[in-house]
This record gives sequence, structure tokens and C-alpha cells, in this order.
Amino acid sequence: MTPAQSTLIATIAEQLGPRAVVTDADDIAPWLVDWRGRYHGAAPAILSPATTHEAARIVMLAREHGVPLVPQGGNTSMVGGATPPADGSALIVSMRRMRTIRRIDAAAGLAIADAGVILAELHEAADTAGMRFPLTLGARGSATIGGLVSTNAGGTQVLRHGTMRRLVAGVEAVLPDGSVHDGLAALKKDTRGYDLDQLLIGAEGTLGLVTGAALRLAPRIAVRAVGWAGLASPDAALDLLRRFEAASDMVESFELIPGDTLARAVAHLPDARAPLAGTHRWHVLVEAASGDATADPAALIERVLATAIEAGLVEDAVLAASEAQAEAFWRLRDSLSAAERAAGPAMQHDISVPVPAMPRFLTEAAAAVEARFPGTHAGGFGHLGDGNVHFHVRAPKGIADAEAWYAGDGAAASRFVHDLVIAAGGSIAAEHGIGQMKRAELLRTAPPARIAALRAIKAAFDPAGLFNPGKLVSLAPEGDAT
Amino acid sequence: MTPAQSTLIATIAEQLGPRAVVTDADDIAPWLVDWRGRYHGAAPAILSPATTHEAARIVMLAREHGVPLVPQGGNTSMVGGATPPADGSALIVSMRRMRTIRRIDAAAGLAIADAGVILAELHEAADTAGMRFPLTLGARGSATIGGLVSTNAGGTQVLRHGTMRRLVAGVEAVLPDGSVHDGLAALKKDTRGYDLDQLLIGAEGTLGLVTGAALRLAPRIAVRAVGWAGLASPDAALDLLRRFEAASDMVESFELIPGDTLARAVAHLPDARAPLAGTHRWHVLVEAASGDATADPAALIERVLATAIEAGLVEDAVLAASEAQAEAFWRLRDSLSAAERAAGPAMQHDISVPVPAMPRFLTEAAAAVEARFPGTHAGGFGHLGDGNVHFHVRAPKGIADAEAWYAGDGAAASRFVHDLVIAAGGSIAAEHGIGQMKRAELLRTAPPARIAALRAIKAAFDPAGLFNPGKLVSLAPEGDAT
Repeated sequence: MTPAQSTLIATIAEQLGPRAVVTDADDIAPWLVDWRGRYHGAAPAILSPATTHEAARIVMLAREHGVPLVPQGGNTSMVGGATPPADGSALIVSMRRMRTIRRIDAAAGLAIADAGVILAELHEAADTAGMRFPLTLGARGSATIGGLVSTNAGGTQVLRHGTMRRLVAGVEAVLPDGSVHDGLAALKKDTRGYDLDQLLIGAEGTLGLVTGAALRLAPRIAVRAVGWAGLASPDAALDLLRRFEAASDMVESFELIPGDTLARAVAHLPDARAPLAGTHRWHVLVEAASGDATADPAALIERVLATAIEAGLVEDAVLAASEAQAEAFWRLRDSLSAAERAAGPAMQHDISVPVPAMPRFLTEAAAAVEARFPGTHAGGFGHLGDGNVHFHVRAPKGIADAEAWYAGDGAAASRFVHDLVIAAGGSIAAEHGIGQMKRAELLRTAPPARIAALRAIKAAFDPAGLFNPGKLVSLAPEGDAT
Repeated sequence: MTPAQSTLIATIAEQLGPRAVVTDADDIAPWLVDWRGRYHGAAPAILSPATTHEAARIVMLAREHGVPLVPQGGNTSMVGGATPPADGSALIVSMRRMRTIRRIDAAAGLAIADAGVILAELHEAADTAGMRFPLTLGARGSATIGGLVSTNAGGTQVLRHGTMRRLVAGVEAVLPDGSVHDGLAALKKDTRGYDLDQLLIGAEGTLGLVTGAALRLAPRIAVRAVGWAGLASPDAALDLLRRFEAASDMVESFELIPGDTLARAVAHLPDARAPLAGTHRWHVLVEAASGDATADPAALIERVLATAIEAGLVEDAVLAASEAQAEAFWRLRDSLSAAERAAGPAMQHDISVPVPAMPRFLTEAAAAVEARFPGTHAGGFGHLGDGNVHFHVRAPKGIADAEAWYAGDGAAASRFVHDLVIAAGGSIAAEHGIGQMKRAELLRTAPPARIAALRAIKAAFDPAGLFNPGKLVSLAPEGDAT
């Protein structure tokens, strides 16, 4: 611990009370590693403000003592975005004591929540108020509002409701100068200059500490239906998506799954069955829902699928006959990542391209990767409706040393995939962010002018580089070189 | 003309051809005054790039020669946002030669348009493609896409479709360093750091020159209905709005009109008739629409109005019986500003507060202004559904010198109104921006930390202060003092 750190820790304990500081190594340990266990950091203390005022106090003191801070919510980053630097130079600021849902205004369709509120808790509170917060993802039992804001999180309902960027009506945050930006009035129209809320969304904690957010609610789901279709190609799937979009705005999810990935998931999950009897090269899971109990999403799905079968677009299809069957369909979808991981060492890529470009990308990128790296298996599954798939490259069967493959051919394959994504006009970070993991690739693939703009914004807000160091972008080119 | 200006002009004429430069004083004159005639600027030339590449060339050369640029679209700013400085130090960059709609992809719901495309042209092109760009405003025959992006424009359909911030899927712009930011891929998911598109939206040309945008389209309207209701108070109007919101998402507009303002509009417009037979203290115009021909917005409006009458909330109501009558209702709404202006000298305020706070604000602010400035008449009308009204303070009847009132009591009344807006958690610039007109009031009413953040962003992008000088915010405190 540096003298500055120990002074800071003592001052915070004195000013904010002992609960605001944790220094016990065992208590800190779980928060030093990302949940996949790929990044290992060090930090002599976790600071925990109980209020926005306390958070501002912590930032002011950290600034005074020149101690970097790593904001942390549920620690569910997929890119090492919440893991402190390994040199122990930074302290963690955990938002876990700020867990109050301050207000739900069902009539206005708004919830105001502390940054430390867990997504599942918000779901429950909205439901109790007869409403719904229409964003969800696998980590909903741990991920916090602050983290979701800071990563511009997506998930499986983006097709209809958008990412956090559309669902956040306002942000409250402590900026690096210690001032509190309060956007919680959630004005529908406000043209007083650059939008700081939007700048903080997706900033990965590098421009300040998000302490709360105003979030848009949707009506509670009254009726939903889930369908499953087997088809020959991603092109057919895109055509089917457009038919659904033209028919209704009730479609919430449209997930694309390759036949072989599905087969692995069925084998992987106990008691799982494939939704369709035959084999198909590609599958689609589609969900439609409405807050209006008189709407009929099941009829919509049946009608569109029936005409698509008639048109020769869909080979076979089924509508979930019960809520239990709908859940079973989703369980299959949710187990794809785990099933892929169980199939052997692989590089995973969270990438997006424009929706119309996705079918071609899936087919051509997989072929290009497999040709360039013989023995690998490449493919993608996921949110076709958002132009976002999780694209994996599995190591050749029987390789002796997985770690060596990750560091060598695996890394080369990742760069190759990213180059294909950029060539298709896409993003190498669709919904998981940059964090530590993708910094080098962001630097390699982004136009220099974009990196310069990111650095200039970072320097404008955090000239001392105290906020989440080592993530997203650094002040100086040197800082990004690692 | 300074030597730097004349060198720049000559170089641009040489490199981009004579059409890229206008120096004839008569041709320039109309573009030196804002459309209300309140701001008078000077500029020795108008530069007109024909392509993004030419726009980048102009920016590079202007930077090299240290000559400020004032981006201009349709010159319809309500706050002097496109008028050059009076000292002639800047050149105008008109986007009028960049007027191509590059692409409309109806299936993807996207249009890619040059910055100089006029809103009405985009409406037509979208309609031809079976789609609709769901933002409109009075100046649609002149206002350009670049200007709409740069002011985060609103209008009368924000309730359902949002402001430009929600309708813009990506921005193309030349940044002050001469690099081109290309966000036109319009990815649905992209988490590669700070969102430059969102930063450029509403930046009033102070962070760069917008050259194009990807815009979200909605299905073409298949059915619409317009209703009119008379009621006793803004509270009743808010209650009615909530009933509509709970009943359907088809409601596009919900406009609130005081009885006396309506009476003036009826008297002002030739051949106009009040929609309802009796007199009411407040009126509401409501429009519902759908792209689905089987939807029934008329039945929705009738049903909700009928139950509201039963509940004693609405005193009287009528559904437009024809498209002509619907247009007549809208013509009344659209003439309110002109009718108010004809009623005598007044200060107008484009303000917003949180929607739930609007009824109380309207009643209390009007009373407070009239008490503090005896003889004035104060009131608001407009987009209740967005929490945005145009709040006017009319000078006492029979004042001798309107100009003296504007400068004296009128200005004091404006500051008083703005203080009330801030106290209600609102914005002094709801949909017209800051421009030149509201700079001093922004500085006076915004927290210093917010001004510091705006300045830091401005400095990060435009350290030489060459982009739209004198608008929104300046680099240095001195620059904002005027």
C-alpha cells in the first residue's frame, strides 16, 4: 500500500465510517478476479459509498491524493472491465451499498435506481408496479444498473426495446472533478448542449462514477409466444425476420442458431430435446409479446411461420404449446455458449455487423477462417435481429496445448475475424465493451482519428487518468500499448 | 476580408472549383440574418462542398489558415445558431450542394441522407419507399437534416417517436482535425467507447461539420385520427394523457392549448372555427396513428374521450370527421405562435419540465410572473406529452416602447421564467437549442461543473475554437461573458 493510499483509506474511514472501507484481504479477494477467471488484479481496499454524496466525497479525496479508482458493480464484465490493475495502484469503489430503487412512477414509465441495484431486483420492483424493465441478460442476478449503464448493455430484447442507450432516460454520476452530474429529471426534450448522459453510457467508468439512473419502463407483458423454425440458410432467416418486422412490432427476440451448435446444446443439457423432429442447417427462435392482453402474439407467429413455410423459406416450425415449452426453447438458446465451451478450446467474439450484411458475413467469415486456419471450426449464433452474433473459432481437434493455441493461432484467428468484421462495416465489441481484453484490438482496428477523439474526451474529463485505468482507452499512446 | 480569409477562399476555389465559393455580397446577404431578423452577421464568403471529401478538404484548409467556420443548413434556427459573427471573422459553410438521399432501405427501416437534404424532401422520399420519417416541424420546407441533427430537433411527434437523438442511427461528420467520423453503418449494437454520434447530435456545429446521417424510418401511416377536447385544467389534461398512454401506443401528439390563446388563433385565422361549441379554460388536440391499416385510432380516441367525459375529466370533445377537419384542427394548433405574436409584444420561452410537473408549473408560473410583473399576461401552450411548452409573457397593454420593454422588464421576466423552470427541474432550451440567444442564460442557470464539462468537450474537439464561434459555449469564460 502506498502512503497516499493509506492516508486516503484512513480519511475515508474517518469521514464516512468503517462500513465505507474494506481492507480485509479475504473480503477483497473475490473482487480481484473477473468472473471467468482470466484477469487477476490487486487492490488494498474496497471503498463503498452509501449515498451519492459519499461517492462524491470519495472521488474528491481520491483526486486530492492522486489515487486511481476502479468502479465495480456485480463484477460480471466479459472483458475484464471491472478488474483492478495488477500492480495494486488503484482502489475498488463498489456500489453494493447503493441498492435503493428510489422511485417507480408507473404512469410516467420511469424508475429511478441507485447504481448498485441488481437487474433482477429492478425486474421484480417494476413487475410489482405493473410494469417491466425490458432488458435482460444471463447475469441478471448479479449485474447492476451502474454496470449496465457503463457498458451500454444489450441482451435478448434489443430488437424491440434497444440497448441501455435507449432505455436510460438520465444518468446521475460523480465526474472526476468531484462534481455531481444530475440527469435524473429525465426531460423528454432538453437541448442545452452536449449530452453528458449519453457520454457516460458505455464509458466503462472511465469518465466518472455512475451513482444512479432514470430508466424507461414498458408495460408488463400480458401475453407472449415463442416459436422455433428450421431453415436452410442465414439468408432465409433474415427474410423471415423482415416478414415478422413488417407484420408487427411485437417481436422482441429473433435468435439464429446453427444446427451443429444446437445439437451440441441438446447433448449438453440434461433432459433437453430438439424442438423440431428433423435436422436443419439453421434454426431460429422467435419471441413476440405484448402488454395488451387482447393482442395475439401466438397467432402472429403461427401466421408468419405458416406463410414462410408455404413460400419455401422455412422447412419446419413449431409454436411453443405452453409456458414450460417456451422456457425449454429459451433454455436451449441460453446453453449455447456453455455447450460450445464444452466442445473444446475456442476463441469467442462478440461482434456486430449491419443486419443486412449478417447472412453473408456468417457464411463467408466461417469459410475464410476455416480455410486460413486448417482444422478449426468457425461459426456464429445469437441476435440476428440486432446484427450481433457470438462468433467462435474452435481449435483443431486433438491439439496438445490449449494455452499455446490461445496465445498463438487462436489470437491470430481472432485478429483475422476482427479484420473481417471491420471490412463488413461492423464492430469488434457489440455488447460486451472493450475493457482490458479488447484494448489492443481496438487500437489496431479503429481509425487513428477515432482513437484520438476518444483520448481527447478522456483527457477532458479525467486529465489525471484516475478513473478505471487500463480500460477502454488511455490518456497517452504509451498507456494503450500494453 | 483578412489575408488569411482571402488565401483560403482562393485556395478552395482553385482546389474545389468556382461553385464551391460564393463571394457576391447580394448572394451572401440572405444568409447573414436569422429568419426572425434578430441577429445580423457578416461573412465575406459562403463555402459549399459538394461531397464529404470536399467538406473535409474545406475543414483542413480552414484549420491551416485559422479561419472560423459557421455551418449552415436551412438557416431556420430560432436562437441565432446559424448566423455568423458580426465582425466578419468567419466564413459560412453551406450544405446546400449536398442534397442527395444516398439510400433508402425500407426493409431495414433506414435512410442515409446528405446533411443538406431538406426535411420535406426526406418525407417525400420515405413515402415513395412506403415508409415515413416520423419527425416534423413548421420549418420542414427549409430545415435540413444536418441542422436537425445538430439541434437535436423535436416537433409534434416526439411523444411517440422521440427527438432526433432517437431517430438518428448514425452520423457522418468532419471533425475539427479534418478527419471524417463515419457512423453511417448504423450498427444496432456497438460498444467501442464513447458515442461520437450522440455527442454530435445537438452540438450546434460546435464540434464539427455534420455531412450526413443514417435515419430511422417508421412504417407509412395507414390510418390516423385527430380528436379535440375541452377541459378545466392542465391537471385534467395530464390525466387524459395518461389514459391514452395506458390504452395504446398509437398516440403521436398531445398538445395543450389555453382557451384564450385558442380564441386569439380563431380570430387571427381567416375562416377558422373553434372545434367545440362551448368555451373551455383548456383544450387538448390529440392525434393517434398506425402503420397497420387494420388498427383503429378513431375508435381509440372516441373510447378514451368518452370514458374521460363520463369520469368528469373532459367537458366536451369531438373527433375530426374528415381529413379536412383534422387538418383544420392542426392549422389552429400551428397558428398559435403567430396569433400570440399578433396580440402584442411578448417574450417567448421554449422550455421543458418533467411531464408530471407540467400542470403545476403552468398554473403557478403564470401566476407568479403576472404578480411579479404587473400588467403582463403569461401562459404556455404546446407539447404536454413531452413536458415542453412555449411559454410567453406578453407586455402590459398600451406600453409605449416595445424595444425598451424587451430590453428591460421583458428580459427580467425571461430570467424570472427561467429561474422557475430550473427550480422545477426543467430546461431553458427544450427543442430550439442555445445558439447565440440563450448563451448568457445557460451560463447563469447551469451548474458551473456542467459549463466546465461542456467547455472541456469543446476544447477536446476544437482547441482553436474554429467551429461555429459564439454559439452554445466558448472555450474560455471570457468568450461566454458577452
